[in-house]
Amino acid sequence: MAPRSVDSEARRIEIADAACKVILQKGVEGLRLKEIAAEIGFTTGVIQHYFRNKEALLLFTKTRLVDEKFSRMRSAALREKGKLRLYAMALELLPLTERDVEMYKVLSAFRGRAIGKPALMDLQRRRERMGWDMFAQETVALQATGELPPGLDAERAAIGLVAFIEGLALPLVMGSRIPDHETLLLLCNEYFEATFGPLPRQAASTVSHRAARVPADNRGVRRRDGKIYGTTVNVRRD
Amino acid sequence: MAPRSVDSEARRIEIADAACKVILQKGVEGLRLKEIAAEIGFTTGVIQHYFRNKEALLLFTKTRLVDEKFSRMRSAALREKGKLRLYAMALELLPLTERDVEMYKVLSAFRGRAIGKPALMDLQRRRERMGWDMFAQETVALQATGELPPGLDAERAAIGLVAFIEGLALPLVMGSRIPDHETLLLLCNEYFEATFGPLPRQAASTVSHRAARVPADNRGVRRRDGKIYGTTVNVRRD
Repeated sequence: MAPRSVDSEARRIEIADAACKVILQKGVEGLRLKEIAAEIGFTTGVIQHYFRNKEALLLFTKTRLVDEKFSRMRSAALREKGKLRLYAMALELLPLTERDVEMYKVLSAFRGRAIGKPALMDLQRRRERMGWDMFAQETVALQATGELPPGLDAERAAIGLVAFIEGLALPLVMGSRIPDHETLLLLCNEYFEATFGPLPRQAASTVSHRAARVPADNRGVRRRDGKIYGTTVNVRRD
Repeated sequence: MAPRSVDSEARRIEIADAACKVILQKGVEGLRLKEIAAEIGFTTGVIQHYFRNKEALLLFTKTRLVDEKFSRMRSAALREKGKLRLYAMALELLPLTERDVEMYKVLSAFRGRAIGKPALMDLQRRRERMGWDMFAQETVALQATGELPPGLDAERAAIGLVAFIEGLALPLVMGSRIPDHETLLLLCNEYFEATFGPLPRQAASTVSHRAARVPADNRGVRRRDGKIYGTTVNVRRD
């Protein structure tokens, strides 16, 4: 049995994190509670104390990942004003850190597993809809205060922005090192400005460094191969 | 045993198509050769005559799906000239038909299954790289003949275009009816023109109807709910 003094929700989160690790190492197909228990140094019995069965644990794990992402997007928006709120949300969704890529990997495992399973697909779809809604609400609000082009279709723009960023994550999910950091930011910036109009350059740069968890004075570090590594933003080649 | 008169490759394709159907109905997790055999009215022995094991069958199935897509993109490009070649390729990648969505679903199942399986991820990544390369080669060629903005980074633009389209497919893969047909085309057109410059409207419309397998006189059919259903293109709301 699990020690009673430990907060139950914290323990569930600990188990979910272990499940993510096992999924990243071995995949979700044929995942066994025993493996998750071993990862965290528990017995299977302890896991079963917190989760009815494997499906309940996986559902909690997926929900937690998505909610964490949404919560980070909300916090990022709260730190900014005007159009930079939307930009900050977009950058939180962009896979700029290793942890972001891992999150996309685990979600990709869940998405793949949902194919042919209507109940899982329904859950997956409802969660993803929440992502669009967050962006659409932000876009509508910005439009109302005159910060975005008046003719912009807010819902469509939100769908496009989320699709673009999630599409950029796909090759990284498969272990590709392309698009690199710089390309991700350039593409995101180009798309953002083409759709929502220009951003204040200096402020956008601060937002992007924050999203990449990189100090603002660390941008544009040149590697030995001459490529710029890090989080250079708003550097257009044309 | 399978009848000897039947062409072996055709039979392998028939089995791969049956595998897709079973994946769409039941998922790829725990997929059994017996189920594929039942789908096609064969015995498991017949399947094993054509494929060493389940992994070999799944690899063939995935490769076939991707190759079919690439081959359609090539054919679509061959029918057009100049920038419309690139546009036609993009629209072939866009999930405009039910069959396209099914292809994305099966690929999504394979992608998810590859998480935590380095060998599968490697295969997946190499295939996806081929898609970028096709777009990058086309972009470079168009730029050389002065059809695209001279300062455009061809590789980056190819990565962005493929990402955008694949990202748009993600909600459809999860069974969402949003983005609908019209939204997909509008977003794709807007992105394309923002990145690669304007398209000839009439010709672009013909390309989009071909990609959606819809006769050119069938566009803009209004449904009872007042929404436009079908393949209306180049209708900007702003």
